[in-house]
Amino acid sequence: MQHTCIYYLLVSDEIQSFCVKGWGVDLGLLMVKMNHTTLDTSEYAAVVNMNLFVALLCACIVIGHLLEESRWMNESITALVIGLCTGAIILLSTGGRNSHLFVFSEDLFFIYLLPPIIFNAGFQVKKKQFFRNFMTIVLFGAVGTVISFTIISYGAIKIFNRMNVGSLELGDFLALGAIFSATDSVCTLQVLNQDETPLLYSLVFGEGVVNDATSVVIFNAVQHFDLSRITPSDAFHLIGNFFYLFVTSTGLGVGAGLLSAYVIKRLYFGRHSTDREVSIMILMAYLSYMLAELFYLSGILTVFFCGIVMSHYTWHNVTEKSRVTTKHVFATLSFISELFIFLYVGMDALDIEKWSFVQDSPGKSLGVSSILLGLVLVGRACFVFPLSYLSNLTKKNAREHITCRQQVLIWWAGLMRGAVSMALAYNQFTRSGHTQLHGNAIMITSTITVVLFSTMVFGLITKPLVRLLLPPSKNMSRMASSEPISPKSFSVPLLGNERDPEDEAGQNGSALHPSSLRVLLSTPSHKIHYYWRKFDDSFMRPVFGGRGFVPYIPGTPTEQSVHNLIPEEGSG
Amino acid sequence: MQHTCIYYLLVSDEIQSFCVKGWGVDLGLLMVKMNHTTLDTSEYAAVVNMNLFVALLCACIVIGHLLEESRWMNESITALVIGLCTGAIILLSTGGRNSHLFVFSEDLFFIYLLPPIIFNAGFQVKKKQFFRNFMTIVLFGAVGTVISFTIISYGAIKIFNRMNVGSLELGDFLALGAIFSATDSVCTLQVLNQDETPLLYSLVFGEGVVNDATSVVIFNAVQHFDLSRITPSDAFHLIGNFFYLFVTSTGLGVGAGLLSAYVIKRLYFGRHSTDREVSIMILMAYLSYMLAELFYLSGILTVFFCGIVMSHYTWHNVTEKSRVTTKHVFATLSFISELFIFLYVGMDALDIEKWSFVQDSPGKSLGVSSILLGLVLVGRACFVFPLSYLSNLTKKNAREHITCRQQVLIWWAGLMRGAVSMALAYNQFTRSGHTQLHGNAIMITSTITVVLFSTMVFGLITKPLVRLLLPPSKNMSRMASSEPISPKSFSVPLLGNERDPEDEAGQNGSALHPSSLRVLLSTPSHKIHYYWRKFDDSFMRPVFGGRGFVPYIPGTPTEQSVHNLIPEEGSG
Repeated sequence: MQHTCIYYLLVSDEIQSFCVKGWGVDLGLLMVKMNHTTLDTSEYAAVVNMNLFVALLCACIVIGHLLEESRWMNESITALVIGLCTGAIILLSTGGRNSHLFVFSEDLFFIYLLPPIIFNAGFQVKKKQFFRNFMTIVLFGAVGTVISFTIISYGAIKIFNRMNVGSLELGDFLALGAIFSATDSVCTLQVLNQDETPLLYSLVFGEGVVNDATSVVIFNAVQHFDLSRITPSDAFHLIGNFFYLFVTSTGLGVGAGLLSAYVIKRLYFGRHSTDREVSIMILMAYLSYMLAELFYLSGILTVFFCGIVMSHYTWHNVTEKSRVTTKHVFATLSFISELFIFLYVGMDALDIEKWSFVQDSPGKSLGVSSILLGLVLVGRACFVFPLSYLSNLTKKNAREHITCRQQVLIWWAGLMRGAVSMALAYNQFTRSGHTQLHGNAIMITSTITVVLFSTMVFGLITKPLVRLLLPPSKNMSRMASSEPISPKSFSVPLLGNERDPEDEAGQNGSALHPSSLRVLLSTPSHKIHYYWRKFDDSFMRPVFGGRGFVPYIPGTPTEQSVHNLIPEEGSG
Repeated sequence: MQHTCIYYLLVSDEIQSFCVKGWGVDLGLLMVKMNHTTLDTSEYAAVVNMNLFVALLCACIVIGHLLEESRWMNESITALVIGLCTGAIILLSTGGRNSHLFVFSEDLFFIYLLPPIIFNAGFQVKKKQFFRNFMTIVLFGAVGTVISFTIISYGAIKIFNRMNVGSLELGDFLALGAIFSATDSVCTLQVLNQDETPLLYSLVFGEGVVNDATSVVIFNAVQHFDLSRITPSDAFHLIGNFFYLFVTSTGLGVGAGLLSAYVIKRLYFGRHSTDREVSIMILMAYLSYMLAELFYLSGILTVFFCGIVMSHYTWHNVTEKSRVTTKHVFATLSFISELFIFLYVGMDALDIEKWSFVQDSPGKSLGVSSILLGLVLVGRACFVFPLSYLSNLTKKNAREHITCRQQVLIWWAGLMRGAVSMALAYNQFTRSGHTQLHGNAIMITSTITVVLFSTMVFGLITKPLVRLLLPPSKNMSRMASSEPISPKSFSVPLLGNERDPEDEAGQNGSALHPSSLRVLLSTPSHKIHYYWRKFDDSFMRPVFGGRGFVPYIPGTPTEQSVHNLIPEEGSG
């Protein structure tokens, strides 16, 4: 007998009473959860299951590696399939008795698994590409989500009321709209490659991040407003709320990133210890996410911008070893979290309790799933194509336009629904993890079906579809013209110093006598870019560090800034 | 309102019912713990507290960095002091009502915080130094712990029975012996520097690791045997148990390490992804620890040897980036875990419930603490000096002897009692996190006092004591002769290929006509060393990879092995 195991037997009852105390809750958040009616066997089972889960994660990595060359598979789908298989085996081995194989926990998801994924996305995102398409991304993420939400909710009300699926209220239908308009950023990261399709990646992933702020507002609205008789002032209130959320969340993330940069630059940790630098970066990033949760902001937006700022300033202030370490440790944490989520969703999908509710009406459940999937397809189509057209209107250069094929891919790549949708569905349609209402059970099983189907089928088809619509050679050359493909672009600063290919395009554009509308809409973006660059060089970098400032490399920022003046002069 | 926060309100009841299911327990281990009588406010408080805790960790790093130049302070003590101060502030701000500021959780400690610390110690340990002193380390860790346990238990029985401290049984006294003979490896890592005092470090830290296996056996014995009438067969059973535990735990760790090396070498992950390599290493290491827990083995021994094997084989099979990343990520995780533990212990120390029990008899509590501290001092002295003498007898070379000053330091540096002692004390003397018995309450508060006093006072004095007894110049030159001090020694393989300074010492020793006893005792160690090296070069490295094998560097292992034959021939 190992002492730790002896503890298990004795500690289980303690835990319960610990929790009731105020501060106990805090550690509760970090602590092991215990079965209330704990026995030796169940604690032992917990250790067995934990071993099994870690071993499965290892298996996912190895199998994912072996399947890497496959043009259909990716690691998410591998994890999902392994999760499903394991779930099936356990279900069979317990004779269908052990139904709750793996219970989906929103808290595990939102507190531990999501932050590293989104932070890493911000840390590794090609900042230039992201900020160049910033307005399009916000358009897609905010307006697009509202359109999608409206269509799905409206469609659900019209169709489900006729189908008699159970006692669903207006709030449930609106929640359905919010659940199924939440694009899953995690899936997107898996199926799209930043280096191969940078424009698509930044648009679809960026949309997913902004989408979060929108869904917060919509969810809040569904909970607190009577949407059947909304007044114009309510609408303004909602829009104001969105902007408040967007600005404060972004500000918090930027602030946390800058603070970490300043502390590391000021104290010059690098002289002493790489571990301290890495620790500070990890802890500050996590703190920014938790602070956002504390202030009821969008943690996803916050940690995303924290990642961007950290890669622009903090990352350049640390030692070379810390740079390599942070780059890979964030990617690794994100990688493990992603696998964890997909394995988890795959196992949870076989939860027999919910399926037993819909056993008597499998046709209805299938029908609901198909209708929801159809609504998702239509809802997304209804904003991708019109908004892409709108976005193209503002671009002066035809090469910057979102082509028809790219629009189809944006539509397709954002169709996947993942853990976010499941978390929202559990929140809306279950109480105490169980559902007694027939209608609610159908909604849960339909959500699982949609998530599995969209992730696996749409996910499987995305890679071949990208190759079909954007053949590598054409695609690569096309993308290469607007963004240099190199691993070094990781360290490209936020709208950085180097000569921008877009500026050359701008010169060409101005030579072609652009229409006045285009000039009007594109100039502010260039102006902002220019002033930001100036501000960054003269104030931000000297204070917070950044490329070329720690350690100081004698560069010629002034000379390079002059280059960037040219398109301004040409087009202005 | 943020959607995540909405979930908090709804999910809390779900969690409870989730747990009762078999598999729910599994995720329970990873999940957020929830207050049973949850309200909005308490969930919000949990987020507040989590923020506060992460912020405090950041503060510890910054303040620890600022105090680094101090000859007294170290990061553990800083974290402990910050924890105490924060605890005091919260206690005052809640008017003494919120007594359970931070509840010590054995599971959090043994499942999440301890594994990264011990794994990192194995990963970064100077393998040559460790294996050279292997017999001494096992002697200290096994025989020493039994001696210390006996003396503390015996002393406690004799003294406390006269003091009338409450209803303590024989089992309680024996448990006290086990609790206070558990050397805290974490504190040792903080106060001793591997580069400055490699011999001390490897002896004291190695002892701490072996100590774990011993304490498992002792704890088990206290629980299952009637020690008042122990038979010789029981004693043999215990000794056999210890060897079984030692061999299987080590084997499991070595096996897990070799498996990771083989998988990475075979599949050649490096070609594709650094993230996969790092993930596999992290997950396999953790899996080895959890497997040990599963089989009731010593997880600490397992994960320590897994770290050693991984640094000898796996680490050489991965890409250069992965090497830098893993080296620093393990160190960082260990660093954060250590800070976490000390901050946590500092905060928990102010738990008012236990102190209120001893309010009426502060003198008695202080007396018990002093006696326990005295017994710890005496118990350790009783095995360090005799066993050092015994160890010196087996060394043929006077330069390898443990000097008197070093013996004092070994005695002193192992006196600290930390989180392990607290975990054991909570296990023995509380039920459901509370204690109703006066005697038990005194034991808990005394343990806290001993832990705080030994960590802070002994910890503060250790650094200056090392400088006093082993002045840097003398110390450095002394140590340099037996072990080259360089950051590269990190990559020195297990009893590696390079010309061993000890071998030269061996030649000198044989020239001085060593006594036959010395030859008898030292030869096997050299023989083992030689055969191991041969086996490693001819079989292990070609199969599992390792320095010089992936990628292949044309070295001359045969030529170097010949060098190592010389002392064998000379002395044999």
